[in-house]
Amino acid sequence: MKEITASVITIGDELLIGQTIDTNSAFIGTELNKCGIWLKRRIAVGDDKHEILKALVNESKDTDIVIITGGLGPTADDITKPVLCDYFNAKLVVNEEALENVKAIFQKINRPVQEVNLRQAEVPENCKVLPNKRGTAPGMWFKKGNVIYVSLPGVPHEMKGLMMDSVLPLLKQTFSLPHIEHRTLLLAGKGESEVAEIIREFENALPSHIKLAYLPAYSLVRLRLTAKGESNVAEEVDEQFARLKPLVKEWLVADTDISLVEAVSKLLRTKKKTVATAESCTGGYISHLITSLPGSSDIYPGSIISYANAVKQDLLGVNQETIKTHGAVSEETVREMAAGLLKTIDADYAIAVSGIMGPGGGWSDKPAGTVWIAVADRNTMEATKFFFRFNRERNIELTANTALNMLRRFIIREDSNSIAAGS
Amino acid sequence: MKEITASVITIGDELLIGQTIDTNSAFIGTELNKCGIWLKRRIAVGDDKHEILKALVNESKDTDIVIITGGLGPTADDITKPVLCDYFNAKLVVNEEALENVKAIFQKINRPVQEVNLRQAEVPENCKVLPNKRGTAPGMWFKKGNVIYVSLPGVPHEMKGLMMDSVLPLLKQTFSLPHIEHRTLLLAGKGESEVAEIIREFENALPSHIKLAYLPAYSLVRLRLTAKGESNVAEEVDEQFARLKPLVKEWLVADTDISLVEAVSKLLRTKKKTVATAESCTGGYISHLITSLPGSSDIYPGSIISYANAVKQDLLGVNQETIKTHGAVSEETVREMAAGLLKTIDADYAIAVSGIMGPGGGWSDKPAGTVWIAVADRNTMEATKFFFRFNRERNIELTANTALNMLRRFIIREDSNSIAAGS
Repeated sequence: MKEITASVITIGDELLIGQTIDTNSAFIGTELNKCGIWLKRRIAVGDDKHEILKALVNESKDTDIVIITGGLGPTADDITKPVLCDYFNAKLVVNEEALENVKAIFQKINRPVQEVNLRQAEVPENCKVLPNKRGTAPGMWFKKGNVIYVSLPGVPHEMKGLMMDSVLPLLKQTFSLPHIEHRTLLLAGKGESEVAEIIREFENALPSHIKLAYLPAYSLVRLRLTAKGESNVAEEVDEQFARLKPLVKEWLVADTDISLVEAVSKLLRTKKKTVATAESCTGGYISHLITSLPGSSDIYPGSIISYANAVKQDLLGVNQETIKTHGAVSEETVREMAAGLLKTIDADYAIAVSGIMGPGGGWSDKPAGTVWIAVADRNTMEATKFFFRFNRERNIELTANTALNMLRRFIIREDSNSIAAGS
Repeated sequence: MKEITASVITIGDELLIGQTIDTNSAFIGTELNKCGIWLKRRIAVGDDKHEILKALVNESKDTDIVIITGGLGPTADDITKPVLCDYFNAKLVVNEEALENVKAIFQKINRPVQEVNLRQAEVPENCKVLPNKRGTAPGMWFKKGNVIYVSLPGVPHEMKGLMMDSVLPLLKQTFSLPHIEHRTLLLAGKGESEVAEIIREFENALPSHIKLAYLPAYSLVRLRLTAKGESNVAEEVDEQFARLKPLVKEWLVADTDISLVEAVSKLLRTKKKTVATAESCTGGYISHLITSLPGSSDIYPGSIISYANAVKQDLLGVNQETIKTHGAVSEETVREMAAGLLKTIDADYAIAVSGIMGPGGGWSDKPAGTVWIAVADRNTMEATKFFFRFNRERNIELTANTALNMLRRFIIREDSNSIAAGS
C-alpha cells in the first residue's frame, strides 16, 4: 500500500515573529495520524505572496495532500485567497451558501455586517466549498494533478470544526489508507534517559513496523508504540505493549493516552472520593488543572488559594507562630495548611503546597525553586520537600504535576495498606 | 542594507503527530525579530535523516541563518548529530568542556551517568561549541559557504538559555543588522473586523516601511506597528502610533506589548490596591493568571475557589435560599459571592464568577456558555451576564479575560467618578 503523506502550510507573519504559537498544525498532525496519513512536513511562512506560492509549489512535489491554514481573515494582510487564485489560475466568485452564513452570523451576534465581512464569502471558482459552522471564512478543497489542497481559516476552533466535519471524512473517501495503532504509557518520576536504559533491549528487539517514541514533559515521560500496516497490527502492538508495561511498572501512571490530571481524576471518580487544594505558590494552577476537565464537580468541591500569610492563618487556621518560627515555606506550614483545609472544605483528600517559584523571593537556605507539598486524608498525612531549578512557569507546572502524582501514590498506597490489613 | 533572513528547522516526529506543540520557533522568531533578523520560514520535519538533510539543503538556499532545534536527546530516535556530520562531512569528537558539564549535572542531581548521557558530549569536529548551562546537550555553531547554522536542544528552557547567552550575541557580531521598532496596542471588547473598518484610512495611509498587524486573541485584539530601516524609524513609528491611539481609545487597555493581566496588575500596583477572586466556573484560572506574574503578592492575597455550592455557602456566605431560588449561575449568587469574599479575605477589590463552561451542565434557559461576573469594592458592585459559545477551554479563557477587563474598567471609572466629584 502506498504511503499517503501530507504537508501543512501555516500562513501569517504573526507565526514568524512569535506573537502566535502554532497549535493548529499539532491538531492537524494528530488527526491525520489517526487516519493513517503521515504528516511529512509543517511549514510556516509570512503574509507574503511569493513565499506562499513557493511553499505551495515545493510542498506539492512530494506529498499527496497540502493543508493550508490562515490568511483568510477580513483584513488587508490576509492574502491566501488571491494567492490561491494565482496558483490555480482561477477567479474569485461569491459563494451563495457562504454569503448566507456570513449574514446569519452577524445577525446572531447583533452586529452590522461590514463590507470586508461580505468578502469572506468570495472563493476561487475552482474550489469545492466546505461550510464553516463556526465562523465567516469557508474552507476550500482543490485538486490539481494528483494533489489535494485544502485551505482552512487560522482561528483554531473554526479550523478544528472544518477538519472534523469535512476534511477528514473527505480524505478517507479520497485515499486508500493503512491501519495505524498507537499505545501509550504515562510514567512519572523517572527521567527519559534512565527509562531508555531500562527498556533498551525491548526497544532493540522491536520489529521495524513498530516504533517507540519518548515524549518527556514536566517530570513525566510518555512512551508511545506506533504500529502501521494491515488490520492485524492491533494484535501485534498489543503484544509488544504487554511486554513493555512490566518493565516500567514502578513509574506507571496510565496505560492510555491521558494526562496526569486525567489519571488522578479517574482514580478519584472510581473510588467516589474528592480532593480539595490549599495552594500558595501554585496560585490556583492545580485547581485549574482539575477543573479544566468536564465533570470535575464530582471529585472537586473547591480550594483556598492562600497566597498571603493572613489567608493561611484566617482561612486555613495555620498558626501565626508556625509561620514566624519555620517560615511560610516549611513542612510545618504545609502540614497545617492541609489539616486546616480538611476542616474547612468537605473533601476526602487535601493537597497543600507552599514554595518559592522565582525568579525573586528566595534566600540562601531556601532558594527560589524550594517547595513543600503535603497530601493528606483524615487519618494520614505526608509532606515532602522538592527543589525545582527552572523558571517560574515551569516550576509552577512541575509543582502541580508533582503534587498530583504524590496524591495518586498516596491513594494507591492507602489502598494496598488497607488490603494488607484485611480491611 | 541587505536584509538578513533566517529559517528555523524543528526536528522530531512528536511535532508532526501533534504530541508536542512547537513553542520553540515562536520564541526564536520573537528574539530574531527584535534584532532585525527576519524569520522567513519555519519548518518541522520528523526524525528522518533524508528529510532533515533535504531541509538543510533547501533552507540554506535563500537564507543567511539556519537554526535547528531538537533531535539532540540521548535516545535512539535523536539523529540530528549524525545528520550534521553527514551534511558537513565531519566526524564526531568528544568535547571536553561539554563532557565535564554532563558529569557535573548528574552529580548535582545525584543520579548515575549512563553511557547514553556521555554521548551528549560528542559534537561534529567542525563546530564551535556553545555551552549549555541548563542541560547536557551543548549548542553547536557552524559556517558553510555564507550561511551560519546553529543546532540547539529542543528542551525549551535549554534552547532559550542558549539563544540568549550565545546565539543572539554571536549573530549580532556576525551580521550588520537593521533597526526594527515595534509599537503595540492592546484592545479589549471590539472585534478585529470592526477595528479594521475604524482604522482603515489610517492603515491605507501608512508608508511602505511601516506595517500594521492585527493579532486577535480571546476577546482581545493587538494592533502592532512595525517599522524597519535606519536609526530614525523610532521617531516615524512613534508619530504613526500617536495618530493611531485616539482612533481606538475607547477599547484601549495598554499601549505597550503586555497582556491583559499584566495591565490589570500594573493598574492595581500603581494604586496600591489588591484584588481577590471568588471563582466557580473558572476554577482558579483567574487566580493562576494573576499569580503567573512574578511579584503578584503585592496585589493579590488569595482566592476562594467555590466549585461546590456548599463552599459558596460555607466560605463565601452565599444564602442557601439564593441558590435555591435563582440558581448558582445568577446575578444574585455572584453578587453574594463578591460581597462574601470581601468579608472573608482582606482585599480592595473582588471578582466573582459563576457560569457553565460546557460541554455538559447547561439547560434551556441557561445554556452552556452562560456566565455571570461581578466586580466590587467595599462601596460599589456591578454584575453582568455573558454568553460564550465556544468549547470549555476557550470559555474559561474568555471568562477570565472578560472578568479582568471588567475589573479594569471598574477601577478606571471609579477613578474618574471620584475626580468628577472632586474627591
